[in-house]
Amino acid sequence: MQDSLRGRPKEIPHNEKLLSLKFESLDYDNIENQLFLEEERRMSYMGFRCLEISRWVVCGLIGFLTGLIACFIDIAVEELAGFKYQVVKENIEKFTEVGGLSISLILWAVLNSAIVMIGAIIVAFFEPIAAGSGIPQIKCYLNGVKIPRVVRLKTLVVKVCGVICSVVGGLAVGKEGPMIHSGAVVAAGVSQGRSTSLKRDFKIFEYFRRDTEKRDFVSAGAAAGVSAAFGAPVGGVLFSLEEGASFWNQMLTWRIFFASMISTFTLNFFLSIYHNKTGDLSSPGLINFGRFESDSVAYNLYEIPLFIAMGAIGKSYFILFFTRYVHRPCLQVMEAMLVAAVTATVSFTMIYFSNDCQPLGPEHTEEYPLQLFCADGEYNSMATAFFNTPERSVRSLFHNQPDTYNPLTLGLFTLTYFFLACWTYGLAVSAGVFIPSLLIGAAWGRLFGRLLAIWADPGKYALIGAAAQLGGIVRMTLSLTVIMVEATGNVTYGLPIMLVLMTAKIVGDYFVEGLYDIHIKLQSVPFLHWEAPATSHWLTAREVMSSPVTCLNRIEKVGTIVDTLSNTSTNHNGFPVVVQPAKLCGLILRSQLIVLLKHKVFVELARSRLTQRKLQLKDFRDAYPRFPPIQSIHVSQDERECMMDLTEFMNATPYTVPQVTQTQFAEDDFFGVLGQISPWQTWTGGTSAGSDIVHTHTHTHTHADTNP
Amino acid sequence: MQDSLRGRPKEIPHNEKLLSLKFESLDYDNIENQLFLEEERRMSYMGFRCLEISRWVVCGLIGFLTGLIACFIDIAVEELAGFKYQVVKENIEKFTEVGGLSISLILWAVLNSAIVMIGAIIVAFFEPIAAGSGIPQIKCYLNGVKIPRVVRLKTLVVKVCGVICSVVGGLAVGKEGPMIHSGAVVAAGVSQGRSTSLKRDFKIFEYFRRDTEKRDFVSAGAAAGVSAAFGAPVGGVLFSLEEGASFWNQMLTWRIFFASMISTFTLNFFLSIYHNKTGDLSSPGLINFGRFESDSVAYNLYEIPLFIAMGAIGKSYFILFFTRYVHRPCLQVMEAMLVAAVTATVSFTMIYFSNDCQPLGPEHTEEYPLQLFCADGEYNSMATAFFNTPERSVRSLFHNQPDTYNPLTLGLFTLTYFFLACWTYGLAVSAGVFIPSLLIGAAWGRLFGRLLAIWADPGKYALIGAAAQLGGIVRMTLSLTVIMVEATGNVTYGLPIMLVLMTAKIVGDYFVEGLYDIHIKLQSVPFLHWEAPATSHWLTAREVMSSPVTCLNRIEKVGTIVDTLSNTSTNHNGFPVVVQPAKLCGLILRSQLIVLLKHKVFVELARSRLTQRKLQLKDFRDAYPRFPPIQSIHVSQDERECMMDLTEFMNATPYTVPQVTQTQFAEDDFFGVLGQISPWQTWTGGTSAGSDIVHTHTHTHTHADTNP
Repeated sequence: MQDSLRGRPKEIPHNEKLLSLKFESLDYDNIENQLFLEEERRMSYMGFRCLEISRWVVCGLIGFLTGLIACFIDIAVEELAGFKYQVVKENIEKFTEVGGLSISLILWAVLNSAIVMIGAIIVAFFEPIAAGSGIPQIKCYLNGVKIPRVVRLKTLVVKVCGVICSVVGGLAVGKEGPMIHSGAVVAAGVSQGRSTSLKRDFKIFEYFRRDTEKRDFVSAGAAAGVSAAFGAPVGGVLFSLEEGASFWNQMLTWRIFFASMISTFTLNFFLSIYHNKTGDLSSPGLINFGRFESDSVAYNLYEIPLFIAMGAIGKSYFILFFTRYVHRPCLQVMEAMLVAAVTATVSFTMIYFSNDCQPLGPEHTEEYPLQLFCADGEYNSMATAFFNTPERSVRSLFHNQPDTYNPLTLGLFTLTYFFLACWTYGLAVSAGVFIPSLLIGAAWGRLFGRLLAIWADPGKYALIGAAAQLGGIVRMTLSLTVIMVEATGNVTYGLPIMLVLMTAKIVGDYFVEGLYDIHIKLQSVPFLHWEAPATSHWLTAREVMSSPVTCLNRIEKVGTIVDTLSNTSTNHNGFPVVVQPAKLCGLILRSQLIVLLKHKVFVELARSRLTQRKLQLKDFRDAYPRFPPIQSIHVSQDERECMMDLTEFMNATPYTVPQVTQTQFAEDDFFGVLGQISPWQTWTGGTSAGSDIVHTHTHTHTHADTNP
Repeated sequence: MQDSLRGRPKEIPHNEKLLSLKFESLDYDNIENQLFLEEERRMSYMGFRCLEISRWVVCGLIGFLTGLIACFIDIAVEELAGFKYQVVKENIEKFTEVGGLSISLILWAVLNSAIVMIGAIIVAFFEPIAAGSGIPQIKCYLNGVKIPRVVRLKTLVVKVCGVICSVVGGLAVGKEGPMIHSGAVVAAGVSQGRSTSLKRDFKIFEYFRRDTEKRDFVSAGAAAGVSAAFGAPVGGVLFSLEEGASFWNQMLTWRIFFASMISTFTLNFFLSIYHNKTGDLSSPGLINFGRFESDSVAYNLYEIPLFIAMGAIGKSYFILFFTRYVHRPCLQVMEAMLVAAVTATVSFTMIYFSNDCQPLGPEHTEEYPLQLFCADGEYNSMATAFFNTPERSVRSLFHNQPDTYNPLTLGLFTLTYFFLACWTYGLAVSAGVFIPSLLIGAAWGRLFGRLLAIWADPGKYALIGAAAQLGGIVRMTLSLTVIMVEATGNVTYGLPIMLVLMTAKIVGDYFVEGLYDIHIKLQSVPFLHWEAPATSHWLTAREVMSSPVTCLNRIEKVGTIVDTLSNTSTNHNGFPVVVQPAKLCGLILRSQLIVLLKHKVFVELARSRLTQRKLQLKDFRDAYPRFPPIQSIHVSQDERECMMDLTEFMNATPYTVPQVTQTQFAEDDFFGVLGQISPWQTWTGGTSAGSDIVHTHTHTHTHADTNP
């Protein structure tokens, strides 16, 4: 009605609608062409059963391997960090009495820098995508955006070694985020039954060599990673769903859960051997919050407003230091080493000038208590926070006796650690942001609890503070609640943690996006959010689609196809197939056309090689996922005159929407279907709506064409 | 390819494709007609915000009220059952010494029968749909099948009173299943801001008066019910998702979680007041499994095969007694009373002949220890199991000292309780099946643990047995695992419980469907399962659609519309709207046409009442959900000659699929979109595929028509 009053927006050229050329979307739609349907028909009931069973086997393997990797990281960090702290502790003890603690400081700083250097070098020079936690990349992948190199074997190796170096090097980082990325890489590798990097093909799981299946396994891998990192299998499942799912697929969810369970189980089993308690499977994931006993720290109704207030505090201040302009690998390594040295220096200074001495209890949980200038039988409380792996510091903030830390210690620690964490974030090292957030939150939460001083246990406030800080930074609500509940092993805190996370999210969203979203935006990833952007409310399909549509005929000249694919101004990844006059009969992907050209499936040649085997799905699967570019396909001048019959290969039942469909609804309603299937080049036109609309609209247009 | 070789199946008349005429599907698709789009356009950003906030408010209310109802049921059962057991206990104690225990037996049996009679009368005479647990009905509703009367206020009242009577009456039933149904009814009521039964309209939440929104709230209500019943908010969310979701909608999931949290919180808060521990929010839901301390009962690797073996045992034996041929209300009441009396008699006999005496510890958990013929300071162990509410019995089986029950007691209890539960299931009383299943499973699990006797704690095996039995009966995997984990308050058992539930499901599915599915099948509900039935693999859209399609013109004669709606042989609930020549331009629902006819929105009349207000969405919302049948609309002979313009009211962008689409894929891929939106009469054609295919195919046909 009002449409006719408002002027139609001008046609925008295709390339200007692109947010970035670097990213493709996953082909999440099954290509239901004749080859596929024939295969499905040939497959017996037992065949389907076997497929289903092998999916479970793959998920089991994913869980197992992810658990193993988590175990390896954990043990490596424990051993190396233990060794480092032991050396530094002995050195400090030696020089405390004779004087000359500056030597200890230098030892500490040099040790840190050296270890971090190794981690930074492998990341900066060998695989820059392994920097950071990897969660934004996995989030994109789960949402249907293909980030180059993100699920490769090399990335995994660099990530694992890198994160060990970062944590052992004493940076303000955690090893949990990288675990999630590692799980995803394991899943992408195992499910394909081959490694393209190692050029090994085990000839198994060939059926799974397509984006649909692979993405499903990657979500299981990410869940297994969360599960291993936090000992939270349910949290892992919800993480995968919250970050990635459009559909609820029951069988898939069960498999994800299975992978998560196996992952926790594997980790626990091997850690129980490592800790000489073989077979005791009750220990939790990489980060152990310790048990909160419900009796001792139950909360009361009047505390809830306090908790909510704390939630409002925890916001994504990290952003301050986020943007970073060091791009040359050498400088990145130098910077990482500098941060490592500064971290050691600051920690040392803080410990040195602190005079918060606490008696060394008989059941002390401190692994490396530093006596320093305290009386015998006492230890330096600031050192518990700084001279320790961050995981241990979190645990001691949660569980130590109420008077363990004095408020000054907590305040100073919060401030310094906060600035260190901000500086560290964005360095070219593999590093998670969960643990620093938890640690900062736990510190100010405990401070808050101490200042209130009316209630018995500041550990409770440390937990709420940690939740608030983490929630403010990563903005996950559902999965984070469950992760926290599972990691604390106590459902009692479910409601307050949820309220805190909700508040943190609402208040945080008011000011600035979550850290991961900022990260995604800075990289210009065409990421489709849950809610359609406000500007898309009045847009219809007609207004956003590319036009004229680049179509192919069902029987098309090879030359035309090559030209279409080579044309850089219309670099679509999928093309509607039409029969004259302009009637849509299918959809074919760039990758399919490339395989066809490579195998020279031309009508003319077909006669001369009648005895040759027909092109099969296997040929497409073998080429997956690294299809060659069109430039590498050689087509002679004679061949250009041949014809190609696309009938067998095109998807005859693509999705279409009428051209008057509002994009808002196209996104809302079709999200499950269209949200992740676009074989088109990603696109955006001022809105943050990504890859999927063009798909809808090119179709739409074609569809509209057919109804003149 | 092979299509042309196989003969086309003959056309099946529309009515023969129907599984049942009793059920309609929910209109899960938004009706994107001009009225709706105009409303959306008029609505400001703040308007959308307010809507979103009111959704949260509604979910909070749902959680609160569900928690209150759970609290009411719990307290009522506690008080009434306490009174009953006290009376009987005193009577037994009196007659144990003087002889004449038969008087006690009669007292017990009469009390039980009288209480059960009340419950059976209200169910059988006032609202038969309130019988049973209500979970199958809610499962259907969440899957898009509208079961008549299932979410009405009257059903709620009868359900709540009924379940109190059943539990207090000593039947082998639980109060947890009905809680889920209650939560769903609360949600359906609160979200509409009015009660059609009470004829009260609060004029709020009018926007939510359509199936889409209502179903979303009902899923929150069901989750809140689970949450209240088991103290398992995450389990509640997963229950709703596992049983109902097709889409993963992030905001909706958060709201469901919020409702669940509030529900647990409310229940805990009021129960803490009732138990004189005001403000202590740490107590769990209606059923309290008690805490399993991880240290005492950790499991070992070699126990896992044992657990899996136990999973294979727990199957749905209930089925034996399931089919029931008592249909007259009077007889139903008599039968319920008989079962109540027999239950009391059997329990009494078992207790009487048992000689399993146990010392009465100082910290005994038994509420009503019966001394009977035991020595002073001892109590009858059989009585702990029988002379108690089932919830307490479960708890004592989980947690009592290893030697509390001797194997004979456990064996006899398992057998008798099993037969009682089977007989009880299907009675015309409100009653859940969770608790009896748990109780039977816990009993044989504990027996199993005692017989192994090598390990310390048979309570652990009781838990695994309970999981196996429950899993074998209800066949939920993911949500049940989480519910069990949350109810035990211990994540350690996650993996074994999951393995047990998976085994129970796989072994169970091999023999017979789950109890709820059997229930649904017996009622001929056209329920769409997750996986497409095997027979649908080769069916295409063309083969299953109704033809010829009953279409309406965009400007249609009133007489034609009335005739179409009155025609019982084509009782569709939605009609494609076409413009000549046979071009699809929209879709209109029966309910919309009825409202239009009622308001006499005829082209000719429009001129004469130019000043009158236009028909608005509000008129449709006011009529929702009980649209009158076509027979009650009076249309005069003159009016039959008028014309109706459907342009404004039809959905101009309905979903369509090409007619060659395989139904298998239509189901797989489109499930989220088409799975629950069908405005058509439900349909089936030999397969169990339900309501949705016709929608697809009638469209398809029309769509196909337009491409001649």
